[in-house]
Amino acid sequence: MRANPSSQSPTDVVVVGAGLIGLVTAWRAACAGLSVTVVAEHLDGAASTVAAGMLTPATEASFGEEALMRFGILSRDRYPAFVAELEEESGVSAGYRAEGTLQVAFDSDDMARLGHLSELRARLGLTTERLTGRECRRLEPMLAPSVRGGYLAAEDHSVDPRALLGALRAAAERRGAVGVRDRVRRLVVEDGRARGVVLDSGGEISAGQVVLAAGVATPAVEGVPEGVVPPLRPVKGQLLRLRMAEGEPPIVARTVRGLVKGSPVYLVPRGTGEIVLGATQEEQGFDTRLTAGGLWEVLRDAHELVPGVSELEVAETCVGLRPGSPDNEPLLGPTAVPGLHLAAGHFRHGVLFTPATGDAMAEALTTGALPDYARRFAATRVADRIPAGAAGGGPIEGGEQDQWT
Amino acid sequence: MRANPSSQSPTDVVVVGAGLIGLVTAWRAACAGLSVTVVAEHLDGAASTVAAGMLTPATEASFGEEALMRFGILSRDRYPAFVAELEEESGVSAGYRAEGTLQVAFDSDDMARLGHLSELRARLGLTTERLTGRECRRLEPMLAPSVRGGYLAAEDHSVDPRALLGALRAAAERRGAVGVRDRVRRLVVEDGRARGVVLDSGGEISAGQVVLAAGVATPAVEGVPEGVVPPLRPVKGQLLRLRMAEGEPPIVARTVRGLVKGSPVYLVPRGTGEIVLGATQEEQGFDTRLTAGGLWEVLRDAHELVPGVSELEVAETCVGLRPGSPDNEPLLGPTAVPGLHLAAGHFRHGVLFTPATGDAMAEALTTGALPDYARRFAATRVADRIPAGAAGGGPIEGGEQDQWT
Repeated sequence: MRANPSSQSPTDVVVVGAGLIGLVTAWRAACAGLSVTVVAEHLDGAASTVAAGMLTPATEASFGEEALMRFGILSRDRYPAFVAELEEESGVSAGYRAEGTLQVAFDSDDMARLGHLSELRARLGLTTERLTGRECRRLEPMLAPSVRGGYLAAEDHSVDPRALLGALRAAAERRGAVGVRDRVRRLVVEDGRARGVVLDSGGEISAGQVVLAAGVATPAVEGVPEGVVPPLRPVKGQLLRLRMAEGEPPIVARTVRGLVKGSPVYLVPRGTGEIVLGATQEEQGFDTRLTAGGLWEVLRDAHELVPGVSELEVAETCVGLRPGSPDNEPLLGPTAVPGLHLAAGHFRHGVLFTPATGDAMAEALTTGALPDYARRFAATRVADRIPAGAAGGGPIEGGEQDQWT
Repeated sequence: MRANPSSQSPTDVVVVGAGLIGLVTAWRAACAGLSVTVVAEHLDGAASTVAAGMLTPATEASFGEEALMRFGILSRDRYPAFVAELEEESGVSAGYRAEGTLQVAFDSDDMARLGHLSELRARLGLTTERLTGRECRRLEPMLAPSVRGGYLAAEDHSVDPRALLGALRAAAERRGAVGVRDRVRRLVVEDGRARGVVLDSGGEISAGQVVLAAGVATPAVEGVPEGVVPPLRPVKGQLLRLRMAEGEPPIVARTVRGLVKGSPVYLVPRGTGEIVLGATQEEQGFDTRLTAGGLWEVLRDAHELVPGVSELEVAETCVGLRPGSPDNEPLLGPTAVPGLHLAAGHFRHGVLFTPATGDAMAEALTTGALPDYARRFAATRVADRIPAGAAGGGPIEGGEQDQWT
């Protein structure tokens, strides 16, 4: 996107954040005929560039998250058409791969746990095929002999989030979206309505509507009335990117997820010869240190499942912060402040939820309301929970406000 | 050192290579009154910048390497005076630490193996103190409860090889040594005598004597008559540099070496808050890939000995190639080509052997012969072994020659 100077003509929508969620919102809003400006300090989104890109609601299913999983299934089912349209419009590959996912168990306790999850999947209408250890190794010959068995989720695919970011950026640009490389100093609220943003460079962008889509940095945007944006806790993930030697076939043919003595690990292959190994899940605040223990944990479990990873080159080590909302569900659409929307709190599911979030946000920006399938995740559910007049939850006003921390 | 253009005035000695061995040779030769030029593509030495810097002949002692260990003890004993003189002359700290080394065993097999090595040490005149697991933990409280026991080597210290490189460079410069940042294209041999080197930039440096001290790259210098420089095999080491959080005391107070189910691992603390974890020992040719298995192995063993390393930040991952000669012993002093010296093949001991190598090379360059204590490592032992007229071992001549591979 064009990187614009500080002086901006008014725009229908300003999106704060240029990760997958910000860019899909920008592209879909532009497709719906709105003029859009995206503001971000870096036009790459931090968590989006770290993510492995699994589109795996079936093998991700866990108890207590059924609503999230239904949204995930809906978004996953939109992926093929979404990618086709995106690649057509952008001319850029999104790195979508439709080989399914093999979920395997290291010992009998792990297998028992996968069995329970398969019952949950059945209740959600997802079918996966139970396989013996031998059948797993027939699909993925590099699996360790000790792997006890698993489940094949034929519909759980993957995408390359870095490629997807590039495609979304190109597509948004083709639809006339403007990119501004700057930090947002604060939201402008006048007469109780969001009117745009002030930039660090001193410029201001006037907009009919503002979407905050800045991952874990979303609550740090100043000038937002209290009670409107909840705290988002950073959930740290550490992972490694390995590289196959030139001309060597990938060590796994499809995404392999495993439970190793209760500890989850995954290997996601790319067409480029890259294999993503991940990931830790740590709640330690805004800590982006790569640690000895984080690397060790991922390498240990990956080595148990696929011993041959030891021979592969480490191309990159990454740390990202997943944005977790208080109820671990995303925050979408209009807030209690007219003109202010959220598209945040996607936690571990940002890549999977990208198509459905783009559609839902475009509808919210054009009609003022979320579609039915996204209503559960309405950003207003947070403000509703905070009684008026309670500490930190006063009436919605403009001007100087504390930020959430 | 001054980085000089291609045109050079003649010099007494040209040293090829600017790692610890090249620089200590340059400094000591300059101290002895010789004019010295150091040529290297990078003025940092590759293996020297990766090395952990243990000065540990006692805890390094292994069967079949008694002669190496005697040279190591001699060099270790010179370290305090060497560092004092170097720091005085350079004004730069070499990061020398005199806290000793604790060598520990993870299980009873490891303890039995350390016991055998302690008998070898006794034969070499090295005293180490046997400690129980509890006594080890009293010295190093972060050791795992499972550590069975160990030995304290009160005289086995450490130095920071990167700091030492900087100090040697500054000291050599103060003694008038000149640094040239270029690749050596070939050795010049005229009338059977080494006369200098031709540089990649096209320039030539005429010198009375030439020292090849380029680690594993030493045999790749062209123009050296066959049979003079043996092949040096690269022995790959992978290690990690961890970083203590600001203000936190180091996780170990001294070098801790361990055997974990037969696998050696070490943790070397620095005054800067850095902890070096190492190292793999792999014979794979000129392979400098960081691998998943290499990182995993080091992290696994370090975690077994000192579980708290998990919390530490990974500041850097490194791969280096140790130069191993055919008999694993260094190659020092005059070769069969008059005017051509070697200072190479230091394998795992380059940092430890630095002071003794500098002294021995200065003596060889001024008197033409190695001192007694270094004679066993004479570079000529290689040429002597290759019968004249045998394939690859013809008479010494100048001109175009194949390089060893």
